[in-house]
Amino acid sequence: MKQILSVQNPLIKQCKKLKAKKYREEQGQFLIDGQHLLQEAISAQLSLEYIFYDPNRCDPPQNTDAECIECSEEIIRALSDTPSPQGIIAVAEMPNEPDSDLSAGRYVLLDDVQDPGNVGTIIRTAEVLGMTGVVLGEHCADVYSSKTIRSTQGALFHIPILRRNLQAFTEELHQHHIPLLATAMNGESLEEAEVPLNFAILFGNEGKGVSPALLDKAAQLLTIPMAGKTESLNVTVAAGIVLYRLHSKR
Amino acid sequence: MKQILSVQNPLIKQCKKLKAKKYREEQGQFLIDGQHLLQEAISAQLSLEYIFYDPNRCDPPQNTDAECIECSEEIIRALSDTPSPQGIIAVAEMPNEPDSDLSAGRYVLLDDVQDPGNVGTIIRTAEVLGMTGVVLGEHCADVYSSKTIRSTQGALFHIPILRRNLQAFTEELHQHHIPLLATAMNGESLEEAEVPLNFAILFGNEGKGVSPALLDKAAQLLTIPMAGKTESLNVTVAAGIVLYRLHSKR
Repeated sequence: MKQILSVQNPLIKQCKKLKAKKYREEQGQFLIDGQHLLQEAISAQLSLEYIFYDPNRCDPPQNTDAECIECSEEIIRALSDTPSPQGIIAVAEMPNEPDSDLSAGRYVLLDDVQDPGNVGTIIRTAEVLGMTGVVLGEHCADVYSSKTIRSTQGALFHIPILRRNLQAFTEELHQHHIPLLATAMNGESLEEAEVPLNFAILFGNEGKGVSPALLDKAAQLLTIPMAGKTESLNVTVAAGIVLYRLHSKR
Repeated sequence: MKQILSVQNPLIKQCKKLKAKKYREEQGQFLIDGQHLLQEAISAQLSLEYIFYDPNRCDPPQNTDAECIECSEEIIRALSDTPSPQGIIAVAEMPNEPDSDLSAGRYVLLDDVQDPGNVGTIIRTAEVLGMTGVVLGEHCADVYSSKTIRSTQGALFHIPILRRNLQAFTEELHQHHIPLLATAMNGESLEEAEVPLNFAILFGNEGKGVSPALLDKAAQLLTIPMAGKTESLNVTVAAGIVLYRLHSKR
């Protein structure tokens, strides 16, 4: 059983760099922090390279081919982004993007959603409500940051995530006759609207909403009926309501 | 026009203390940070004592009786909890709790929701979807923290917020024949369920859900149909879906 006790160990120093997006993209790897997320990754058969664990806090998982390395609490702290890490952190390979068969499906498109917690929460909701995949535009928060992953509660391992230029992707959808839906103030009532079986639904930036150039391409606009003085819902809540409604209309 | 230029000024030092919950409760006051929230507070006729503003960033509002005090950027920074404050911060009086007439209404009850962003987001959703009031249990995040207020987007000024012992409050509801609803894994389908006109709906802690003692008192359990591998929705998303569904069934 391999053991590392110094944060100065070259492998630890290298893995610690995966806290930065640039290095994650270069390496095609990312960190998975904590027992629950790790089990979700294993159950989804994600490829794991190393598992670092503090033997005073937990046992290494049995059901993995990853190299399990005993290490100190200090090393776990160095690798973690949370104030009280659980004592286990893995290095995982980013999964290959699935071939998206755009002949059918129910896609969630995120345009410039900035907050990693929001991106993660919408991925979690999309997975729970049976969507086919989530497509992140180029300016969204990184799906492999620790905060995004934590907010997904592991859902990102169970649903295809694509990263695309959304202008180009909406063209592709159009060619495949998959209609683009979006939410807007003056659309059809979400409750009354007839929705197609296959679709892509677009959600936008926390402050500015969906960019006008993309909104122009929407075939159908949906409105969540509102009864109060506050002008809008949080984007994760709006997405939750719309995805629930579309899911229940199947 | 009064002007303060030193962060050592006694009034500034006193107002800065309002960043701490303990002092807010003692003084019955709290801070409102930023132009949008301040305008929402003014439109809701909240009583404001002082408005501190940086004249290089913005003008003081016209439509208020508060004392408007010119001050330096440094003072705004000292009073704010955000990394890039907008240059205007007010000291507001906590509103008196409204007399809750429990003969009718649609209440949202939060049991031990810990994250201030979650408490704020649920208040925002409840206001947008026309609920009568939000009742916070004793262990919820503080409604007057800057993060909670920011997450409400000002909705907290437009909907009654009560702080109560929920065990006692659910007894009161029972006496007034207002049924208690909650979400659970094995309840009636949210889509199919018949719901009463007046009700209180309970949401619980991010990790543990609603406490069993309160769940026992629920007259009706509702389940959001789930299709994925992830076990649960984020509490703000679950609340959004349930409140939307209850709102649209009126």
